[in-house]
Amino acid sequence: MPLDERGQINEPELRRFVSWLIERGVHGLYPNGSTGEFTRFTAGERRRIVEIVVDAAGGRVPVLAGAAEANVRETLAACEAYAGLGVRAVAIVAPFYYKLTPESVYAYFAEIARNSPIDLTLYNIPMFASPIDVPTIRRLADEFPRVVGIKDSTGDLAFMMRLIAAVRPLRSDFSFLTGWEAVLVPMLMIGCDGGTHASSNAVPEVTRRMYDLSIAGNYGDAMKWQYRILELFDAMLFPFEFPDGFRAAAELRGFRFGRGRQPQTCAQQSDRAALTSVLHCILADFELVDRPATGCAPRIRPAGTDKVEQVVFEVMRELEKRGIF
Amino acid sequence: MPLDERGQINEPELRRFVSWLIERGVHGLYPNGSTGEFTRFTAGERRRIVEIVVDAAGGRVPVLAGAAEANVRETLAACEAYAGLGVRAVAIVAPFYYKLTPESVYAYFAEIARNSPIDLTLYNIPMFASPIDVPTIRRLADEFPRVVGIKDSTGDLAFMMRLIAAVRPLRSDFSFLTGWEAVLVPMLMIGCDGGTHASSNAVPEVTRRMYDLSIAGNYGDAMKWQYRILELFDAMLFPFEFPDGFRAAAELRGFRFGRGRQPQTCAQQSDRAALTSVLHCILADFELVDRPATGCAPRIRPAGTDKVEQVVFEVMRELEKRGIF
Amino acid sequence: MPLDERGQINEPELRRFVSWLIERGVHGLYPNGSTGEFTRFTAGERRRIVEIVVDAAGGRVPVLAGAAEANVRETLAACEAYAGLGVRAVAIVAPFYYKLTPESVYAYFAEIARNSPIDLTLYNIPMFASPIDVPTIRRLADEFPRVVGIKDSTGDLAFMMRLIAAVRPLRSDFSFLTGWEAVLVPMLMIGCDGGTHASSNAVPEVTRRMYDLSIAGNYGDAMKWQYRILELFDAMLFPFEFPDGFRAAAELRGFRFGRGRQPQTCAQQSDRAALTSVLHCILADFELVDRPATGCAPRIRPAGTDKVEQVVFEVMRELEKRGIF
Amino acid sequence: MPLDERGQINEPELRRFVSWLIERGVHGLYPNGSTGEFTRFTAGERRRIVEIVVDAAGGRVPVLAGAAEANVRETLAACEAYAGLGVRAVAIVAPFYYKLTPESVYAYFAEIARNSPIDLTLYNIPMFASPIDVPTIRRLADEFPRVVGIKDSTGDLAFMMRLIAAVRPLRSDFSFLTGWEAVLVPMLMIGCDGGTHASSNAVPEVTRRMYDLSIAGNYGDAMKWQYRILELFDAMLFPFEFPDGFRAAAELRGFRFGRGRQPQTCAQQSDRAALTSVLHCILADFELVDRPATGCAPRIRPAGTDKVEQVVFEVMRELEKRGIF
Repeated sequence: MPLDERGQINEPELRRFVSWLIERGVHGLYPNGSTGEFTRFTAGERRRIVEIVVDAAGGRVPVLAGAAEANVRETLAACEAYAGLGVRAVAIVAPFYYKLTPESVYAYFAEIARNSPIDLTLYNIPMFASPIDVPTIRRLADEFPRVVGIKDSTGDLAFMMRLIAAVRPLRSDFSFLTGWEAVLVPMLMIGCDGGTHASSNAVPEVTRRMYDLSIAGNYGDAMKWQYRILELFDAMLFPFEFPDGFRAAAELRGFRFGRGRQPQTCAQQSDRAALTSVLHCILADFELVDRPATGCAPRIRPAGTDKVEQVVFEVMRELEKRGIF
Repeated sequence: MPLDERGQINEPELRRFVSWLIERGVHGLYPNGSTGEFTRFTAGERRRIVEIVVDAAGGRVPVLAGAAEANVRETLAACEAYAGLGVRAVAIVAPFYYKLTPESVYAYFAEIARNSPIDLTLYNIPMFASPIDVPTIRRLADEFPRVVGIKDSTGDLAFMMRLIAAVRPLRSDFSFLTGWEAVLVPMLMIGCDGGTHASSNAVPEVTRRMYDLSIAGNYGDAMKWQYRILELFDAMLFPFEFPDGFRAAAELRGFRFGRGRQPQTCAQQSDRAALTSVLHCILADFELVDRPATGCAPRIRPAGTDKVEQVVFEVMRELEKRGIF
Repeated sequence: MPLDERGQINEPELRRFVSWLIERGVHGLYPNGSTGEFTRFTAGERRRIVEIVVDAAGGRVPVLAGAAEANVRETLAACEAYAGLGVRAVAIVAPFYYKLTPESVYAYFAEIARNSPIDLTLYNIPMFASPIDVPTIRRLADEFPRVVGIKDSTGDLAFMMRLIAAVRPLRSDFSFLTGWEAVLVPMLMIGCDGGTHASSNAVPEVTRRMYDLSIAGNYGDAMKWQYRILELFDAMLFPFEFPDGFRAAAELRGFRFGRGRQPQTCAQQSDRAALTSVLHCILADFELVDRPATGCAPRIRPAGTDKVEQVVFEVMRELEKRGIF
Repeated sequence: MPLDERGQINEPELRRFVSWLIERGVHGLYPNGSTGEFTRFTAGERRRIVEIVVDAAGGRVPVLAGAAEANVRETLAACEAYAGLGVRAVAIVAPFYYKLTPESVYAYFAEIARNSPIDLTLYNIPMFASPIDVPTIRRLADEFPRVVGIKDSTGDLAFMMRLIAAVRPLRSDFSFLTGWEAVLVPMLMIGCDGGTHASSNAVPEVTRRMYDLSIAGNYGDAMKWQYRILELFDAMLFPFEFPDGFRAAAELRGFRFGRGRQPQTCAQQSDRAALTSVLHCILADFELVDRPATGCAPRIRPAGTDKVEQVVFEVMRELEKRGIF
């Protein structure tokens, strides 16, 4: 989320960012997700964000709006407000802070689904919130037509296959989206419908291309991009506190995201500067930004000296040799 | 938090509850903690809760007000508001949802401590929020006089000892409070200053007695109550979704807490009714409520048939035999 | 491992089993792995098992022999003995019981690799043993030509991709094998070389077919089998104590595996009998065993009533509709 | 375990060590525990170790011999052999590598207890092996008189209290021992019978003193030692790979433990040398070894400069001020 110098929502920049994303091919927008740091905004700010995003999108792509609030009553109020704005659906993360049992997770979503005026998708992100397990998802999909899909951020292929096997026979309209773009192509190969990805804030062209190639059955080319985006994803994810790496990359693409709402020490700011240089070089390898004037050192992985180009080249040569691609 | 039929704060019942707690001996009040389900209320409701509690306490005991909000700016606004109301200090839980590194946890608390108009205590509850480790606590205690204590809910004696050894030499005024009453007496024995306990909502007389006996050096009698409160604590904690067991026990003490804000399935409501009967019997053993007219079955533990009275009797006889008490 | 009535290695049955596996298409054999319960045999028994397997294989397929012993000296003695028997390579699991740091895991494998008379593969199974991370594997691959591959049982596609990206450019001869057949086809799609699978004890024809179809680039048909083997895998893995479900399935294929070395209660034996009936029906759906005379109830998943046939049918119809297959 | 230059059991040094421990006051000996690295010795070596220890002890203190082998049959053979040697009881760790359910853990111990010719104690160490939960321990204690105690290495006071409350009423003869000396005094205060401690290899005088003071009800003095041993324990436990810190400390007390069986890199050997210097200074503060000729720097904790003497002084002054001691 672009913030101004006072730490407030930077509306003009947000509008510019939304248009840029759409122009570069995203199929939809997902404000108030984890990358959007929904927990660090007030309830009023979250509503304002959805208003701006819907308005800036102007119907060009559908909007899936994160609508989880402090409790069911507030969440339903958000659902109503967002429905009135014309979002396609809302996304509701499982309850967090308290770690709830499957039965309570069911009760929570059932209460919302029973009363929501708009379609909703479940958001499963066990590293941050209570997990939503396969039987619970199946139960919700079976009982509530309003529950139309799931975004799963585990990156666990077997989990996603279990989910598809359990739910698709009941609900052919149910959408299975992954939130772990490190494995987007395999996820599409096993039958996922798509994904909503933090990396799309930095390289929307690439995630779109991976999707198009996979849907066309061209897994060979899709996997070349998958290996390359994995390096970028890891560089954005691991060295920074999430989602700061993704904010840094969006800045390199030309957007003023400003200082995030989670304070940083001087040591962290210095780390971020160093790592931004690396991100700059990775994005330059994608030919999405100019190469830095100071040049790019070979990117050192923990035990080696391999540049991504070389890695991908070698990997692909090997795969071709073995007749896979 | 007592709620009315519409799910709103039940102010008269909350006032009555505050007075009852004070009359039964609590040394202070802690609104907007985990037991108070602070995450399930809106920012406005959290302020209203503190207002009511401070007013109902009327200066009889100090109030430690949970003041964590969506971000540092909002948290500081809450600190200011609560300072104006006359709370003794605020308590700030570590950031949750995102799991932050120690450096980020430090940055977060440092930013608040640097700007807070009122003393603050850290709240460490790793099962729900980012952990606050010993070096971070020491660093904050060393740099910010406004940081005056910690509430730790790990129940880990060795962790608390490490903390006391690291911080007390620097700050003899720093308070070490445990939030895990299952081990309150041992915590006081190793040098903790006290505790803030979910169980005090149900049996404030007992937690107070455990404190008084421990401070007087009478660990033998204190431990008899410690073993008894452990059974109650486990019965409130494990079979229900936290903090519903503590709400159920407060109702048995005569307060209308109403339905909580986390929805429940029919199966859960039926479980709760069954377990409320057990809590009734445990509280009757404490002679704090009347024995149920239908009588009490012996409380069955997973592999046996021991009533708490018998357990405690046997344990204590054994301890006495071995000359410890 | 087939055991006789006295709980000893059933050599004739083991020989018969080895031949049967080879005839049904396995590319190699892996005695003394987790499925083989290597920890429950004595050092002498482990050697005897390798002798029998190598002899029964008679050079038809290569043997990868689990050679981890109590310490480096004993492990090297096993490596020498197995080299003398003509195994293709040994597999060494990371140290277990103690949870070691990456540096110690490196030191352990380096000491073995430095002195081994035979090629070795690393065996990464973090759910049971110390994890072997990407930098450590790269470091070992870089320094020791004797380290020729890895078997990874995490089932984590992103981890495997990181590993391939880190190691393949250095060592085009290095083998990447998965031990998590729940995701075998996606693993082959991203560039894995193959797998060693517990399920191959039950359905060697199927894992072989999944491999052949994937290598031929026919992911559509491969995925149909992948979804079906997932149901079998889950049924063998979750309801029983590992690897007892895999033992039960091998018995259904006609081998007398006898009672395992981990004792079972009566309740567990009864559970096993009930679940064996389910396995029987799943294997009958594969047309690998006769349908039980008593018939097969529809297989109930936790929240539903879907038979695997139907699931797979629906899933595949959906995938085809979307033009993926 | 003292090893010679060839990495074999150093029998004369082991005998000397056993006598030294007994002379310094240990109440018993526990060969083949985690500190003794039982998993890194062969079955034959483990037997030899018990023979030597029993012989060197010469009846002066009881021996509790770790007897877990590859499977129940081998374990029972060890039980019989050790019974013949005159050990007081055997200790059996829960199954490791595979993570078993409580039902399987029960089945395992029940099978051993049913056939053992000698008393046995359960060994619960969930950080390394399958956990043994309270209902399972109660069930075993209830059914098998041969199961005479438990060594628990969780350091969790509430767990130990639940265990005492569940088992002591059934079996007043059952022994509750802690293996986490970081909290030995609180454990004795809540009713534990004693402990078996890795630190006793380094400072048997101190653990004995803590026990004696606690049993005498003098928790004030006992806690002074508890705080001091915590610093030593942490220094031995965290910087090294367990149990190498404890080996290093035993060497400082004058025993040649030799190189351990887990290989170390050069970097690790250098770390160990540096940390041995710190251990030397800590032991010198205990007045158990001479102060190093090169002097001792103040021991720096992560965020500070406090020496243990000062910490303990401050802590105790504070406790006395508050009237606890």
